[in-house]
Amino acid sequence: MTAVSEHQAGTRDDELVRALAAPDDTEIAQLDAWWRANNYLTIGQIYLGGNPLLREPLSAEHIKPRLLGHWGTSPGLSLIYAHVSRLIRRTGQQAIYLAGPGHGGPALVAAGYLEGTYSEVYPDVSQDEAGMLRLFRQFSSPGGIPSHVSVTTPGSIHEGGELGYVLVHAFGAVMDNPDLLAVAVVGDGEAETGPLEGSWKGVSFINPARDGAVLPILHLNGAKIAGPTVLARKDPAEVRALLQGHGYEIIEVTGADLPGMHHRFAAALAEAWGKIRAIQQAAREGEWDGTRPRWPLIILRSPKGWTGPEEVDGIKVTGSWRSHQVPLSGVRDNPEHLAILDTWLRSYRPEELFDPTGAPTELVRALAPEGDLRMSASPHANGGRLTEDLDLPDFRDYAIEVPRPAAQHAESTRKLGEMMRDIYARNPYSFRLFCPDETNSNRLGAIFEVSDRGFMEHVTDEDVKISRDGRVMEVLSEHNCHGWLEGYTLTGRHGMFATYEAFAMVSASQTVQHGKWLQEAKHLPWRAKVPSLNVLLTSTAWRNDHNGFSHQGPGLIQVVLTQRGDVARVYLPPDANTLLSVADHCFRSRSYINLIVIDKQPQLQFLTMDEAIEHCTRGAGIWEWAGTDDGTSDPDIVLACAGDVVTMETVAAAQILKEKLLGLKVRVVNVVDLMTLVRPKDHPHGMSETMFTELFTDTVDVVFSFHGYPGAIHQLVHGRPDADRFRVRGFIEQGTTTTPFDMTVRNKASRYHLVMDAINNAKRLPRGATELKTWCEQQLAKHETYVVEHLEDMPEVRDWTLGDWAEQG
Amino acid sequence: MTAVSEHQAGTRDDELVRALAAPDDTEIAQLDAWWRANNYLTIGQIYLGGNPLLREPLSAEHIKPRLLGHWGTSPGLSLIYAHVSRLIRRTGQQAIYLAGPGHGGPALVAAGYLEGTYSEVYPDVSQDEAGMLRLFRQFSSPGGIPSHVSVTTPGSIHEGGELGYVLVHAFGAVMDNPDLLAVAVVGDGEAETGPLEGSWKGVSFINPARDGAVLPILHLNGAKIAGPTVLARKDPAEVRALLQGHGYEIIEVTGADLPGMHHRFAAALAEAWGKIRAIQQAAREGEWDGTRPRWPLIILRSPKGWTGPEEVDGIKVTGSWRSHQVPLSGVRDNPEHLAILDTWLRSYRPEELFDPTGAPTELVRALAPEGDLRMSASPHANGGRLTEDLDLPDFRDYAIEVPRPAAQHAESTRKLGEMMRDIYARNPYSFRLFCPDETNSNRLGAIFEVSDRGFMEHVTDEDVKISRDGRVMEVLSEHNCHGWLEGYTLTGRHGMFATYEAFAMVSASQTVQHGKWLQEAKHLPWRAKVPSLNVLLTSTAWRNDHNGFSHQGPGLIQVVLTQRGDVARVYLPPDANTLLSVADHCFRSRSYINLIVIDKQPQLQFLTMDEAIEHCTRGAGIWEWAGTDDGTSDPDIVLACAGDVVTMETVAAAQILKEKLLGLKVRVVNVVDLMTLVRPKDHPHGMSETMFTELFTDTVDVVFSFHGYPGAIHQLVHGRPDADRFRVRGFIEQGTTTTPFDMTVRNKASRYHLVMDAINNAKRLPRGATELKTWCEQQLAKHETYVVEHLEDMPEVRDWTLGDWAEQG
Repeated sequence: MTAVSEHQAGTRDDELVRALAAPDDTEIAQLDAWWRANNYLTIGQIYLGGNPLLREPLSAEHIKPRLLGHWGTSPGLSLIYAHVSRLIRRTGQQAIYLAGPGHGGPALVAAGYLEGTYSEVYPDVSQDEAGMLRLFRQFSSPGGIPSHVSVTTPGSIHEGGELGYVLVHAFGAVMDNPDLLAVAVVGDGEAETGPLEGSWKGVSFINPARDGAVLPILHLNGAKIAGPTVLARKDPAEVRALLQGHGYEIIEVTGADLPGMHHRFAAALAEAWGKIRAIQQAAREGEWDGTRPRWPLIILRSPKGWTGPEEVDGIKVTGSWRSHQVPLSGVRDNPEHLAILDTWLRSYRPEELFDPTGAPTELVRALAPEGDLRMSASPHANGGRLTEDLDLPDFRDYAIEVPRPAAQHAESTRKLGEMMRDIYARNPYSFRLFCPDETNSNRLGAIFEVSDRGFMEHVTDEDVKISRDGRVMEVLSEHNCHGWLEGYTLTGRHGMFATYEAFAMVSASQTVQHGKWLQEAKHLPWRAKVPSLNVLLTSTAWRNDHNGFSHQGPGLIQVVLTQRGDVARVYLPPDANTLLSVADHCFRSRSYINLIVIDKQPQLQFLTMDEAIEHCTRGAGIWEWAGTDDGTSDPDIVLACAGDVVTMETVAAAQILKEKLLGLKVRVVNVVDLMTLVRPKDHPHGMSETMFTELFTDTVDVVFSFHGYPGAIHQLVHGRPDADRFRVRGFIEQGTTTTPFDMTVRNKASRYHLVMDAINNAKRLPRGATELKTWCEQQLAKHETYVVEHLEDMPEVRDWTLGDWAEQG
Repeated sequence: MTAVSEHQAGTRDDELVRALAAPDDTEIAQLDAWWRANNYLTIGQIYLGGNPLLREPLSAEHIKPRLLGHWGTSPGLSLIYAHVSRLIRRTGQQAIYLAGPGHGGPALVAAGYLEGTYSEVYPDVSQDEAGMLRLFRQFSSPGGIPSHVSVTTPGSIHEGGELGYVLVHAFGAVMDNPDLLAVAVVGDGEAETGPLEGSWKGVSFINPARDGAVLPILHLNGAKIAGPTVLARKDPAEVRALLQGHGYEIIEVTGADLPGMHHRFAAALAEAWGKIRAIQQAAREGEWDGTRPRWPLIILRSPKGWTGPEEVDGIKVTGSWRSHQVPLSGVRDNPEHLAILDTWLRSYRPEELFDPTGAPTELVRALAPEGDLRMSASPHANGGRLTEDLDLPDFRDYAIEVPRPAAQHAESTRKLGEMMRDIYARNPYSFRLFCPDETNSNRLGAIFEVSDRGFMEHVTDEDVKISRDGRVMEVLSEHNCHGWLEGYTLTGRHGMFATYEAFAMVSASQTVQHGKWLQEAKHLPWRAKVPSLNVLLTSTAWRNDHNGFSHQGPGLIQVVLTQRGDVARVYLPPDANTLLSVADHCFRSRSYINLIVIDKQPQLQFLTMDEAIEHCTRGAGIWEWAGTDDGTSDPDIVLACAGDVVTMETVAAAQILKEKLLGLKVRVVNVVDLMTLVRPKDHPHGMSETMFTELFTDTVDVVFSFHGYPGAIHQLVHGRPDADRFRVRGFIEQGTTTTPFDMTVRNKASRYHLVMDAINNAKRLPRGATELKTWCEQQLAKHETYVVEHLEDMPEVRDWTLGDWAEQG
């Protein structure tokens, strides 16, 4: 980005701040004109289906048949937009705008329209009367645009529908983005949510030298849908204390008077910007003592529905929750309401704001920045434009030697940690790991060889691998980790969120919402693709020896399966080499949600790197070495598996069958890319009917051992030839603090269960099957006894892996 | 509860507070003895498999083969337990203990054991040497108990595995529970989570006259798994400001010195209790001016792993994250470590703590309360013991007259609102609605005729239905709403969480974790069943005209389907009368998660109350009036549906087929209770094979129109006769701000799609089928054109309901 302000060079910041703080009358008039135009266009979107410039008297036929939209928060959003635009124009500051109260969509759409960006990306919504009419009509209409700030809104990286994430997105956006200012408006309704309250602490992780800045603006307009908010009704001293406690310097602007509010908000914004610049300059010029800066924060108290009708039908509207959505609801049928609307719209003096063609006048545009500096046009808010491929090492360099399959154990994620260590080193400004305090626990600690954890609060001499300069982001909040990564990728950089499998459900709604964002973005040619959201789930349900049932839940797979095929990807690599291959693929991909599930504990290794690459490329394949299938005809039974522990059990089951039931033709199929199971018409990764039949046959029963809930497989294979023949074992909500083998027994997914399933479902049974079933039952009974007796005599708790079993003969 | 303290009567609180604040040497000795005993038993659980009383020198064979558990947080938890026990003993205060750092399980298990409760509920874990050995061996062992505070821990209503909910559970527990004190320990790791940060504001909703009190104790021990925490490393003045900002009066206790810490913590606890009593007495004696009280909060700063080994192998352990789990890991093989453990254990002087039989000595038990006042035995923490049936009105009194099916519209949830209004009135202390600011929006506003919203911050004259006395709980936080209801029901009271369907995913992990709790509780005979967690999902995916794609997501159904059949219930009543019948059933039920999904908008009404009752009792049934199936033989096609909008479309499709394809035998099946689809062996509600065949036949194709994601039905019907014949339409992630009919078109689930599906899959086709398919395609094309043209000519946006369609002929 090369845009440079006329003011930037040669003007010292403090002079600039003084000038910014004291707009002259001309500037006030220009600010107010923008604001009026923005408000006018907002109301037009909610109400008008005709007569956009009010060139004729307003009549019922100009009113939309159905009134939808949110007025209450919009004037505050627009006021802030106008003032930040002036700041950008005067300083050349690169800035993006995140609207926490994203239901104030029309305000941000209007701003993009005033800036010209809207017409650039949607040429039919031109800056003239016809375009304005289209702007109005499309809003909240079938075939038009949604009512919220959303993917379709240029300049946005934040859909404000599900509240709570505006600050996490903002903080993620500014990491490794030193020149960026993210202006994040927090609504006071949103401020009641847990995720938002947990996100103020972003300042405890932002390095003023290396990162950009977030300027939170807490917009207290007092009400949510139907009642007051906590922060608006608390003693203001308490609100200040709360935010000071989070580490901010508070600047307050309160009122509804004009032009007073313009003067005071301009002064507040100037002060905030000045503080930010001072903090950054000190840090960047080596004058920072390392104390966490007190970043500025603005509290703006202005009436909900400000500049709207004070009263309707004798009841107060402006300044109350009644202005949340459509303050005048009966406009079409009620002449009095129509008259109020007419007066209201004309109070903005549209004739001063739009020229005869309908384009914004010079008065309106005087303080607006141009080109990429326009917040609606910032490339940071269309991060794909700034995305560069990662400089990736060759993942084959981290391969584990696998001389023969299922013979040795390794911690697979440790190899991924080594690969990510080198990705960190090669990409010092564009790759981060986000993890709730579990980087080491998840065996990814090699990263700490090249980067500390980042932390701006007090660090002691005894602390390990944590510093101001660290770029590994550990905070015990899945919401922060997930949201930061979203902000980081939506602004064009790469990363991974690694978490305990069960607790991925904490941020499941973020996964859902980000998926929706990516789904919609694919339909907009002007939105460049962004790096994928890579989620590594480890410390899985099957290996939580240390923790209890609360830590056992593969639910996020189920959630990702609900998303559209154009974004959802689920990988279950069974060992280190497949993990490396999958990770490499994910780091290269764009605009997906890549879910990778693999445990961190020592686990059997199956494939050499070459085999792993081939296997991952196909997504699923027959493991001939594991079965007894000679490939010349259909097997008697297919044992399929997806997931590490269940693959181990499947391979073990096949081995038992091989040794104890001579003549049974067993085929072992492993699935790495879960979406290959789906029909190609439902998912681009879906394997062809031919390949499906090659793997699973058309008629032979399949015993499928799955890492997650069994229902997932049933829904995935629906529509495949005779899907009823799939018998699925998986996690059936049986868990506690116990050994992994006991976990498989509790969930009826142990090798012995699989052997019995195979016998019960095989097309043809050699002699000895009944005896083998009995033997399996005995083994399980032995295990039961063993567990019960265990409390009495405390034998060694054995981790019955395949290797152990093999040794037992 | 009738337990009365010897001290309670006749002693004024301030005298009591003074006495509590200054324990004499005897009391200090007693407090310390309890604490030492509690710590000893904690370490014993982590390490010892033999020699529980250290009667012999410690040797490797006494050490468990695998060392699991969390030591770091435990001594702090135990110190607090000891002091609160003394408070109870001296004051008769009813109290429960919620351990946010619930991985400190052994500390709470030990406390329950010392109090005798543990042996009462688990007689084989007796208060003698053999029992103590069993206590140690069972911990974190296969067949034993999990490592966390969990369902198996007497006195707990809070599993601390997934962090963040300790305060919401505590606040829910004290609502309408004026005599209860909930002591809620917040760990400083947990304090980083969003849900926890969003839960401090519970004090803004607690009425000191009617509700009990929460005493939060923020336990800053400085570290989480592998690094420091934000709150522990912030300037203490900032931490104070933060919590004062939330509305608390801060009391701090810092240090590691003994007995100094006992003196200071006793004084702090006394001060806190005195403040609570003063606030409550003022409010209850009419001396409250209505200002939100400043409730006390204790910040306890003590070292992580306090009283553990200072150093191991020359590296600092106590006071560092290294003491988080097992500070000495090599005890079995490393004689030096073994010696450290021996010294460490003996430092507590077990010979003073346990008598020759192994029972706790009088010194240890001197300050412990008895009977139901023991926190581990409190009936509030086994809420089923206190649960009384709701006094329910007859739900039939709210019935909608339905002279003929599918002929009139009504807002179904409005009738539920009327029913809940009367439940509120009849049960003024044991029923609450929890809702994120959407009670009116969800058409449940009739409740406000008998109760305001509860709010303790400033209320103005202009506010409506909000007051100190309100008992409707509105806060814009799904986490708070869900968690408060959990706390409320786990302490034996009833309620409902009503929320926008899509945003139920925000608290999905709470639904998961609560489900796990209920699942496990069913296996414990001593845990009495509690009222169910009733979740009403409304403002659904299909009817979010006002909002965008972010508001469209039926994901929670998918999540609940992953839970075990003994707790998971999903209901999709299609109209008002079925909703009333379902709600009545749910309000009477115990220990389930009842998910009820129905939209709030005006919708077609299908069944009379008598029909609704019969239909809901069966859970699914044939709607003969809607189809052309004469019941004498199998139909040509089954049109099945579950959910309101999709039922409307299904009935409409059947009507089209009836009118336009004479001779086709169409059967319409509606499913209210989703779990009836599952095989009876997988869910108790699963319908018999016979009934399944009666409804769906064995071989006729089924076009199933489902409210949620189609995959849900595929997984539910797996294993039913020829499950492949189910062709499912549902929500496929297509959405925006649009009309409900357009939503069905976008998701390929409109009446026209269903008609075409029926034709494509019917067993037998009368003449005219091809023409009808063409007609359907024309209708859809007309709709497309209509949508596209709409932006140009702005015709009325029609909500094509069945009634409209019927009128069109």
